[in-house]
Amino acid sequence: MRRRDRFLQTDTFITPLLLDEEKVFKDPVHRYVHVRYKVIWDLINSMEFQRLRRIRQLGTTHYTFHGAEHSRLNHSLGVYEVMRRMVSKLDLSEEEILLCLCSALLHDIGHGPFSHSFEKVFKTDHEQWTQRMIEGDTEVNEILRGISDDFPKKVSEVIGKTHPNQMIVSLITSQFDADRMDYLLRDAYYTGVNYGTFDMERILRLLRIVDDQVVIKHSGMHAIEDYLVSRYQMYWQVYFHPVTRSAEVILRKIFQRAKHLYQQQYAFLTDPVPMIPFFEEREVSIDQYLAFDESTLLYYIQQWCQEEDPIFADLCQRFLHRRLFKYVEFDPQQDYRTWTELQNLFREHGLDPDYYLEVDSPSDLPYDFYRIGQEEGEMMPILLEMPDGSLQELSTQSIIVKSITGKRRFDHKLYYPDDLISDEIRSRLGGK
Amino acid sequence: MRRRDRFLQTDTFITPLLLDEEKVFKDPVHRYVHVRYKVIWDLINSMEFQRLRRIRQLGTTHYTFHGAEHSRLNHSLGVYEVMRRMVSKLDLSEEEILLCLCSALLHDIGHGPFSHSFEKVFKTDHEQWTQRMIEGDTEVNEILRGISDDFPKKVSEVIGKTHPNQMIVSLITSQFDADRMDYLLRDAYYTGVNYGTFDMERILRLLRIVDDQVVIKHSGMHAIEDYLVSRYQMYWQVYFHPVTRSAEVILRKIFQRAKHLYQQQYAFLTDPVPMIPFFEEREVSIDQYLAFDESTLLYYIQQWCQEEDPIFADLCQRFLHRRLFKYVEFDPQQDYRTWTELQNLFREHGLDPDYYLEVDSPSDLPYDFYRIGQEEGEMMPILLEMPDGSLQELSTQSIIVKSITGKRRFDHKLYYPDDLISDEIRSRLGGK
Amino acid sequence: MRRRDRFLQTDTFITPLLLDEEKVFKDPVHRYVHVRYKVIWDLINSMEFQRLRRIRQLGTTHYTFHGAEHSRLNHSLGVYEVMRRMVSKLDLSEEEILLCLCSALLHDIGHGPFSHSFEKVFKTDHEQWTQRMIEGDTEVNEILRGISDDFPKKVSEVIGKTHPNQMIVSLITSQFDADRMDYLLRDAYYTGVNYGTFDMERILRLLRIVDDQVVIKHSGMHAIEDYLVSRYQMYWQVYFHPVTRSAEVILRKIFQRAKHLYQQQYAFLTDPVPMIPFFEEREVSIDQYLAFDESTLLYYIQQWCQEEDPIFADLCQRFLHRRLFKYVEFDPQQDYRTWTELQNLFREHGLDPDYYLEVDSPSDLPYDFYRIGQEEGEMMPILLEMPDGSLQELSTQSIIVKSITGKRRFDHKLYYPDDLISDEIRSRLGGK
Amino acid sequence: MRRRDRFLQTDTFITPLLLDEEKVFKDPVHRYVHVRYKVIWDLINSMEFQRLRRIRQLGTTHYTFHGAEHSRLNHSLGVYEVMRRMVSKLDLSEEEILLCLCSALLHDIGHGPFSHSFEKVFKTDHEQWTQRMIEGDTEVNEILRGISDDFPKKVSEVIGKTHPNQMIVSLITSQFDADRMDYLLRDAYYTGVNYGTFDMERILRLLRIVDDQVVIKHSGMHAIEDYLVSRYQMYWQVYFHPVTRSAEVILRKIFQRAKHLYQQQYAFLTDPVPMIPFFEEREVSIDQYLAFDESTLLYYIQQWCQEEDPIFADLCQRFLHRRLFKYVEFDPQQDYRTWTELQNLFREHGLDPDYYLEVDSPSDLPYDFYRIGQEEGEMMPILLEMPDGSLQELSTQSIIVKSITGKRRFDHKLYYPDDLISDEIRSRLGGK
Repeated sequence: MRRRDRFLQTDTFITPLLLDEEKVFKDPVHRYVHVRYKVIWDLINSMEFQRLRRIRQLGTTHYTFHGAEHSRLNHSLGVYEVMRRMVSKLDLSEEEILLCLCSALLHDIGHGPFSHSFEKVFKTDHEQWTQRMIEGDTEVNEILRGISDDFPKKVSEVIGKTHPNQMIVSLITSQFDADRMDYLLRDAYYTGVNYGTFDMERILRLLRIVDDQVVIKHSGMHAIEDYLVSRYQMYWQVYFHPVTRSAEVILRKIFQRAKHLYQQQYAFLTDPVPMIPFFEEREVSIDQYLAFDESTLLYYIQQWCQEEDPIFADLCQRFLHRRLFKYVEFDPQQDYRTWTELQNLFREHGLDPDYYLEVDSPSDLPYDFYRIGQEEGEMMPILLEMPDGSLQELSTQSIIVKSITGKRRFDHKLYYPDDLISDEIRSRLGGK
Repeated sequence: MRRRDRFLQTDTFITPLLLDEEKVFKDPVHRYVHVRYKVIWDLINSMEFQRLRRIRQLGTTHYTFHGAEHSRLNHSLGVYEVMRRMVSKLDLSEEEILLCLCSALLHDIGHGPFSHSFEKVFKTDHEQWTQRMIEGDTEVNEILRGISDDFPKKVSEVIGKTHPNQMIVSLITSQFDADRMDYLLRDAYYTGVNYGTFDMERILRLLRIVDDQVVIKHSGMHAIEDYLVSRYQMYWQVYFHPVTRSAEVILRKIFQRAKHLYQQQYAFLTDPVPMIPFFEEREVSIDQYLAFDESTLLYYIQQWCQEEDPIFADLCQRFLHRRLFKYVEFDPQQDYRTWTELQNLFREHGLDPDYYLEVDSPSDLPYDFYRIGQEEGEMMPILLEMPDGSLQELSTQSIIVKSITGKRRFDHKLYYPDDLISDEIRSRLGGK
Repeated sequence: MRRRDRFLQTDTFITPLLLDEEKVFKDPVHRYVHVRYKVIWDLINSMEFQRLRRIRQLGTTHYTFHGAEHSRLNHSLGVYEVMRRMVSKLDLSEEEILLCLCSALLHDIGHGPFSHSFEKVFKTDHEQWTQRMIEGDTEVNEILRGISDDFPKKVSEVIGKTHPNQMIVSLITSQFDADRMDYLLRDAYYTGVNYGTFDMERILRLLRIVDDQVVIKHSGMHAIEDYLVSRYQMYWQVYFHPVTRSAEVILRKIFQRAKHLYQQQYAFLTDPVPMIPFFEEREVSIDQYLAFDESTLLYYIQQWCQEEDPIFADLCQRFLHRRLFKYVEFDPQQDYRTWTELQNLFREHGLDPDYYLEVDSPSDLPYDFYRIGQEEGEMMPILLEMPDGSLQELSTQSIIVKSITGKRRFDHKLYYPDDLISDEIRSRLGGK
Repeated sequence: MRRRDRFLQTDTFITPLLLDEEKVFKDPVHRYVHVRYKVIWDLINSMEFQRLRRIRQLGTTHYTFHGAEHSRLNHSLGVYEVMRRMVSKLDLSEEEILLCLCSALLHDIGHGPFSHSFEKVFKTDHEQWTQRMIEGDTEVNEILRGISDDFPKKVSEVIGKTHPNQMIVSLITSQFDADRMDYLLRDAYYTGVNYGTFDMERILRLLRIVDDQVVIKHSGMHAIEDYLVSRYQMYWQVYFHPVTRSAEVILRKIFQRAKHLYQQQYAFLTDPVPMIPFFEEREVSIDQYLAFDESTLLYYIQQWCQEEDPIFADLCQRFLHRRLFKYVEFDPQQDYRTWTELQNLFREHGLDPDYYLEVDSPSDLPYDFYRIGQEEGEMMPILLEMPDGSLQELSTQSIIVKSITGKRRFDHKLYYPDDLISDEIRSRLGGK
């Protein structure tokens, strides 16, 4: 009997792990999210998971695409559902299934607000935090231990990509994992753009496990092409949009200024209590980390609009009221002299270039187009199972994929407050 | 020459009011939101409008439908776009068009966080606040005055339904106004339910103005039926969902307890600073009101989870971590004795029934199905323009609409914390 | 072990019935149609099933809604897929599953071109033909006999509603059977109207078998309401559209004239060979019936445009080139005198009222709104399984359903050729 | 005053050309098709246009994708609607607008059934027939002459690409013309595949006329990329699908055999009357051409299933009952020896290789990916209007487009009747 069939039997050892009745959530992307396991239901109801309601999936993207206000909880339920459909196609043991489902549900649990900006300034890492929350003293940990004592550790290893079963790792972190498939579809749905759509059902149907690797049947090549082009388009049209990046730049400057003021022992009207551990780069407790969600940060930014430090107050107001920096194409490495001149010009005009002049490049942002030969493990090649049974790397078969493979594309932009600069500076910028 | 044609001329007096180039926002519901007027662009960029990003359209609904996390800004842009399409079908002067567009965009600007619960406890009124913000010392007011000195007053009157041009009033507040059409479509899109869909394009095409009233051509009757059935379904399936109401109940109890503690001079670990003016029922300034957005409230609720008052802390934790009250069908008016007994039982078991036992009925919630003979002005009948030119009230023509007309439907539920009650109480509740 | 689980086992007796590999068809309505059983694959490839490509699902509806050109094969695959999803939720034996699937796939196999008009004139019955094809000397019969000798008989009985297992009968013919669910969704998709959408997935999930009846859980009431309102709207907006009916009227007149001419021994330029058995009301063989598909009929209509009989040629040209009759509201039973006068007027002007003046009422058309107390077996009530386990008839629970229950709605229209009539007749008609 | 504004004035010379009231058609792809001009309404109701209902847009594609049964009339209305939206964005005179609209509506009017196969065998050309119908003695011609005597000629020139206003020509025939945009969206909708979707609204908004060329603003580059990738995917996934091509191969063989038998003076049971002019390669009259629609052809193929010639009857049965040829990858130019051997083997086994062995390559099919340097005029480059005002060819800016530019991709397949061949032949084929 295949292992999957056992999974459906109600008279075996599995029963105790199942809910009395399946629960469903209405989901705009996958229509319904189905929950049969009690452990999944309990994880969803844990305080650490519920906290993800207060952290938006796409950070500042809603400043550009007003529809994109969905939270990480929203996305995490989606990843779980994609994984549920994936594992139903594969021949896995029940423990493996649970491992896949829990890892999918919890893979983002360590995210903080506006992670990309925050992590850049404070050198934190959401993946480490995810692992800490799963292995530490949390509700999530307690629920996972209900499966077995070492289950939290296993989940953490899958998310950390160190679990010995690399096939399972690849379901959650690889070129077409449950995470990516959900976020492309979901972010496309919420922003309203066309770019992120592809035929997930077809991809899932054509997945195969060969030599402990997830590969895709040759007849699915065009569906995968479509998926990769979607990803490419979403990165350039949505994730790297300069208006979004402008808001991120301002946010980073707020963090930088707050830290600077704190170090200068500036007398805050509203002390940055929840951020102090991050400023001091000392150990942050799980409770401290959990408390620092997006509402907390927004509350502080709102308070700080009244601070006396003009740079700090100005940056906070800009972020809150969406008075973003403008931008021009500019690569300081190409034109270092202009870069130096601009910094001087800013200083002469009383604008601190450390806060009001910033170069941002999407290559700094999480960039994961399909490319081979990256150091990171997750850049594994996509393999096609050919009619003759051999495995071929995708870009050798697809001219479209080949065209977007291994090409790092840069988009250097210079961000600055157009409302504060003089005509002289403006013409200097325009002269780029 | 029709007035609309003048509107399109670029060489007339209108030009100064237009942007150099049309701006568009990608919108998942209406595909694109188009902005041609500078005043609209400026209003969107005002701090009062941007603040609506920090207030969710559907309050606690995302506890039931995780997809429904969209903000009031998101909806307000949608209402503006529906209105823009409406006025393009009607023959209005440019000033009337601007009045319609600005009123549509700003109609929700006075909303605070979780308005329904908040207003119930503190007797505030978001519509009055909308008018105050438009007429008071705000960025929005300044921008509107750019059109003419009395323009803010006019916009305020349209939203307050006192403007002499009742036809314009009806475009923003009536049985099929821009507001309702947008929210049904938008809330259906974000929750993912099927219920809220109807053919808006057809309705807009068949609108006519007869005797200063907006009526609809007879051939649009089925489209309007569909719209009204959608509304009916959305109310019962989404807006009145008991899980959502359970979260609202808890929120009201938090407000009630906070006010009570404040009046008892309880020593808060975190003083409820932004709420004190509301507790004291004294004049709240516009700045104070603006500062009280959803992140501020969520920040405080999170802080209050650590308060020593056990009821207060418990309620806050319940709200934050979605540990909601359970519910049973119960109407105290039908069974007053049980109601009294339950309250006593709760007290005997050390549970204050003022905080842990609550009856909620959707008729308390904004209830605006189609029905005639309501006191409120917005319950105007929907009129069909018949083939012979006469006007007929809709429910005389449609058996479906007749079936949902004028029928107040109640759904009384009793909410309580299932995790805290004894088996005795539970069986008493179950015995209902 | 539940019977469904056995169904998934690959090492039991079932295997021989399965294909080596699942086949899928891309379907715009259900996304994919999945085929695992060899018998289904073979039935799809039979000549009787393939013939359904040459018969449009909605007859003349594409004259009104140009998108609705889909065939009965298209719909039949959809019904099969809905049934496949239905049976996967129910606990049935493999033979019962096969019976359900085959009946769903074949339920329309006896349809001819423009059945409604054809059957009205020639007193044929597509359901009897379906049974004859299943039980007669056909490829379909041979394939079904591969399951067992009496299997064709059983399939025929399910479709004929005489099979002893009335629960299975109800899956294919009842208030919410696989047939209706598919055609509402499909016809809405192809016409492009909003009306036919409802949440089929939810309905399927909430189906239960109680006392050999298919009932629906109480929590699905609103989904069923939505489905019934969709059906109501589709009937009045799409299926009974007067332009469509006008084309049907002309078609019936063509059939009537052809038969009349044949009986008069008119010398056809193109003899109506395939229709002669129908004219003579003698036994039609299966082969003769199969040969009479929509292309055959359209070929003859095109030829007959050149016939000398002016009425016949005119009607054929009208049908082919969509020069349809106009219509006015008119009920001869209400105003018999006008009816007689009009017929005389037509005669006086040289227009034969038997061919150029026709009253049509949708109550003549297949009318199956939800209503109790019909003689026909398929008008069984929809039952809700209430929280207390009792069964309640739907219209006692839903005010919307109650409003459309048991009400026969008439829409009498008089059809006539506007291009041929005099102003006098026109004003007489307009005076209605 | 801009010319477009004049277009909207109701008190000028335009009025006579307008309908009393706008007509709309419900369309599943563009939601509504709007008709304001009387000439358009009349053209739609002409017999030549109505005939397009009896010719499927995608020929044999519905054998692979059962949803794709839509007619050329369906598509033609869509092209008209896309053009209507295009011209509303451009600054054209009323005559130019009418020229664009009529050309869009009529551009396919000369198509016959299964054009690709038919034209290949009989050397006809649907574009010449379109021009002949527009300029000849037809209803369409008469309606167009209502605008002006030389208007039919102008429309014909636009469709024939010889009209002096090449900008107008390019709206109907170029890299992103109204025709292609509609068919990609429509064919994707009807087949149900994801591939053909792109943001047409965005493309239309960013079209500009520069130097009498239609170009697109640089900010629309990604939308165009998306459109070109969609086209690429539709070709390989839908238009060139081997099952579809197999049916086309059989159809060509039917035509070939019928002609051969006719030339051999074979005694047909059913004479191929409507095809004789094509067999004899003599002048075909417009009436003869019009009479030869898809129902006529299908009627004959059905009749011919009873012919005595075994090859002819077999091919007709295969086509009608979808008993298609199987296929293997094979390029005779690569392996001419095998090709010769196979032909001999077929002959030895009594299978005429002229009818039962065929190589088909999609490069034989209409192939119009984006590529520069083709001889045909319609392969004009797509130009982007850059921020600095210069025009740049698209593939110099887009790596994805570059990857699919100028690359002719071949897919040679060998088609054969698997049910008729011996194991020996099969293994020989499998050995490829």
